[in-house]
Amino acid sequence: MSAILKQRVRYAPYLDKLRTAEECIPLFKHGQYLGWSGFTGVGAPKVIPTALAEHVEKNNLQGKLAFNLFVGASAGPEESRWADNNMLLRRAPHQVGKPISKAINENRTLFFDKHLSMFPQDLTYGYYTRFKENDLLDYTIIEATAITEDGSIVPGPAVGGSPEMLSVSDKVIIEVNTATPSFEGIHDIDLPVNPPHRQPYPYTTAGQRNGLTAIPIDPSKVVAIVESTTPDQVPNPTAPDDMSKKIAGHLIEFFEQEVKLGRMPENLHPLQSGIGNVANAIVDGLAASSFKNLSVWTEVMQDSFLPFFENGMMDCATSTSIRLSPDGFKKLFANWDLYKDKIILRSQVVSNAPEIIRRLGVIAMNTPVEVDIYGHANSTNVNGSRMLNGLGGSADFLRNAKLSIMHTPAARKSKTDPTGISCIVPFCSHVDQTEHDLDIIVTDQGLADLRGLAPKERVKLLIDNCAHPDYRAQLTDYYERALFYCNKKKTLHEPHILRDAFKMHINYEENGTMKLDNWDVKF
Amino acid sequence: MSAILKQRVRYAPYLDKLRTAEECIPLFKHGQYLGWSGFTGVGAPKVIPTALAEHVEKNNLQGKLAFNLFVGASAGPEESRWADNNMLLRRAPHQVGKPISKAINENRTLFFDKHLSMFPQDLTYGYYTRFKENDLLDYTIIEATAITEDGSIVPGPAVGGSPEMLSVSDKVIIEVNTATPSFEGIHDIDLPVNPPHRQPYPYTTAGQRNGLTAIPIDPSKVVAIVESTTPDQVPNPTAPDDMSKKIAGHLIEFFEQEVKLGRMPENLHPLQSGIGNVANAIVDGLAASSFKNLSVWTEVMQDSFLPFFENGMMDCATSTSIRLSPDGFKKLFANWDLYKDKIILRSQVVSNAPEIIRRLGVIAMNTPVEVDIYGHANSTNVNGSRMLNGLGGSADFLRNAKLSIMHTPAARKSKTDPTGISCIVPFCSHVDQTEHDLDIIVTDQGLADLRGLAPKERVKLLIDNCAHPDYRAQLTDYYERALFYCNKKKTLHEPHILRDAFKMHINYEENGTMKLDNWDVKF
Repeated sequence: MSAILKQRVRYAPYLDKLRTAEECIPLFKHGQYLGWSGFTGVGAPKVIPTALAEHVEKNNLQGKLAFNLFVGASAGPEESRWADNNMLLRRAPHQVGKPISKAINENRTLFFDKHLSMFPQDLTYGYYTRFKENDLLDYTIIEATAITEDGSIVPGPAVGGSPEMLSVSDKVIIEVNTATPSFEGIHDIDLPVNPPHRQPYPYTTAGQRNGLTAIPIDPSKVVAIVESTTPDQVPNPTAPDDMSKKIAGHLIEFFEQEVKLGRMPENLHPLQSGIGNVANAIVDGLAASSFKNLSVWTEVMQDSFLPFFENGMMDCATSTSIRLSPDGFKKLFANWDLYKDKIILRSQVVSNAPEIIRRLGVIAMNTPVEVDIYGHANSTNVNGSRMLNGLGGSADFLRNAKLSIMHTPAARKSKTDPTGISCIVPFCSHVDQTEHDLDIIVTDQGLADLRGLAPKERVKLLIDNCAHPDYRAQLTDYYERALFYCNKKKTLHEPHILRDAFKMHINYEENGTMKLDNWDVKF
Repeated sequence: MSAILKQRVRYAPYLDKLRTAEECIPLFKHGQYLGWSGFTGVGAPKVIPTALAEHVEKNNLQGKLAFNLFVGASAGPEESRWADNNMLLRRAPHQVGKPISKAINENRTLFFDKHLSMFPQDLTYGYYTRFKENDLLDYTIIEATAITEDGSIVPGPAVGGSPEMLSVSDKVIIEVNTATPSFEGIHDIDLPVNPPHRQPYPYTTAGQRNGLTAIPIDPSKVVAIVESTTPDQVPNPTAPDDMSKKIAGHLIEFFEQEVKLGRMPENLHPLQSGIGNVANAIVDGLAASSFKNLSVWTEVMQDSFLPFFENGMMDCATSTSIRLSPDGFKKLFANWDLYKDKIILRSQVVSNAPEIIRRLGVIAMNTPVEVDIYGHANSTNVNGSRMLNGLGGSADFLRNAKLSIMHTPAARKSKTDPTGISCIVPFCSHVDQTEHDLDIIVTDQGLADLRGLAPKERVKLLIDNCAHPDYRAQLTDYYERALFYCNKKKTLHEPHILRDAFKMHINYEENGTMKLDNWDVKF
């Protein structure tokens, strides 16, 4: 037993249950329901999933030792290895990694995506285990960075759905990660309470704490603890490209104008931003702006947030996951005393709670697959059918934010056409955010402010300000034909020609571009 | 001045501002922004809207004296008369009445529908008045049933968006309705507070009160009060038909099973139900069941709720509107002491608050236009373009409820075919509720429990249990063709053939039925 493990595990009876990952393999049977800790690629278990994958590979058990796996959002590369080995019968509510989406799109894994604020709650309602004899998860495998004197679990860089999973698990296995310093003190954990006993969440600022810094569990449920020395591996952030900088520029200008018009306070409202190049560019843009005393209420923090604390622009930030590169984690621990007072990690039920997002007036920013001319957005399925990563928390934030913003390039390249895919389309091929949810659409071309506009008024703004010039005439043509068509039938609220609505998508499937010869083309 | 008016208006300075409706007409100019009280056809102003309509009719001012009109939800028949006279330039966020939807669908009125919990809040943010020089409503015309000693307004049977409208109105006109008894004591009103100053709503039960029984306003804003002797006119409820009874039967059976399985308490959770025949049948079904100590957290209460209180099955009920027939109101006032302790009317921001709906674990039930095979629903636009009434609070409740239920006949009649319209379709022609929001779909044919299922698993249940037998083979055929098509491209998460997805809708437009000869038909 390593000295560091002994120091981290302050509840001695667990040390009697110390096992190697290999010793845990016999616990797992085909068809079991498993919960993993982790969120956006950090804080997930590593050594047991790896041992199980090796076991399957060595014994040719692909498809024969497979599981129903629930993770708060995405886990690390270990679950990609499970996907490659057909170890995922069922997966929810969000995933990242080509092998996993491949398994889903090849119908080897059944997947459903659910609002991240709701998934853990619905799990505690028994909704996702209702097909089992007992309605519990068989095991939750949770990564800890410390164990307190009463056996409570101190998570690492993600809280995610762990409190709820632990509350409905038959048995628990803890991976104590000694490769990372302990995160003790950074968490603020609300335990699940179900109706009719729920109370209001007390939070009225991003920086408010309510209590627990570890997750209490019944120690008798813990069947094994395993030491892990595998660190989280998140790639270094890439520098924002020109496209992202343009989008960020339009958005910062808009924020400045909203402040000037008195619709936003000078320090804005708490910010939520997604993952990726555009999100990073926005954060960079804010860093170069004159905004002060910013705060963040979001789902995941990334490397780009760290300079904000150091230069004093950011008062506090809260999320359910802090997804940092190895360099980012080094910075975090080098300045632990600064960060642990300014950063709070909460459960995803709380970080994504409609209650709090609406109360605080959060500014939500997310990237869609596509947006249609009336302001619906597709966040999940390319051409209606091919799953990317899932809904995530996008709709938790976009439905409830004071400002609901989606940002996207105006066009993307296809295999044969540098602007073969228009991100503004007549009709979204899958709808995850409705016209009733979105305020602002912004592309590298410009910004459309949809607030208070009727559907027909939104069209012009979305085409003229947001669509790529290659598509403006084509989209305008669709709309004018739809006006003509619906005028005959007096159905002019949201004019569509359903026979043409998906022609851009169909042409992309058949001819590799959304550019049509004309709207009369037949497929 | 009538004695009853003098008795109702306990703040004397308002009596100096007593005017006739006709005397108020010169206050109104083309293009003004107006707020009206009212919600679901009750509690709206009547005499001033009528006077203005008469003025327009008499002076041929159709389209020349027209307004941007905001009402919490729908007002009374007066706004239909405005629609007929082209007096509605713009209308939000919900409406009921053929003349209004006709004006919208003929492009004479610009309409947008917005979540009813959000509309009043966004109005206070200045989002809907941002096109004006000052960002205020020019007038709010509010119906009161009494005025308190400090000039506060006691609404009638609806609170709706009145507190928010009054807070952002330049001037206020009060219609004191003396045809109805005073509703004083039934309201519990939260005033609008915007970020960053918002606090949690304290409500943890449907019956909890927090304070104000009237809406305080700045008396200097009041430019006129007018006596109204026009009562609300809501038609008597019709008895549930066989179709509705079958739907209700499936649902009650499901509730009983959920209680048995321990996923619901014996008194269920607070219920939300919509308006209409199916909603009434469910309430009747519950009345005939063994459930006790029920409570209601909903948007609108109807006549069908009253017997529940009298037979003791219902502990308490809260909504933003109590939409009763004249007979219903008589019963209410005959038993006022009983009802005013068990019924609470709140602002729509509170009745529809995601915060509280989620906290209480509300059971939400609403009717869609159509549901697709993957579990998305259309609540608003027939064949994608023709507006019915708007979104209302459906998505406030369905997104946040513990059980999100949509109920619909499996098929509806078209002009030429008794089952010409299938309510289960391949792809919704407008999406208001996403697959991530809905748990249960129920038709007269049966019930589909979608909780925890992947999209492909939902299809079979929705077709076999919910679709009308006339459409089962056709829908199955669509799905099997989509599986084949998407298998080639490995896009099997949510299999669709976009070129076929709307063929049932197109065939209905062209041939009056959704029944296709075959899926290869070209349009």
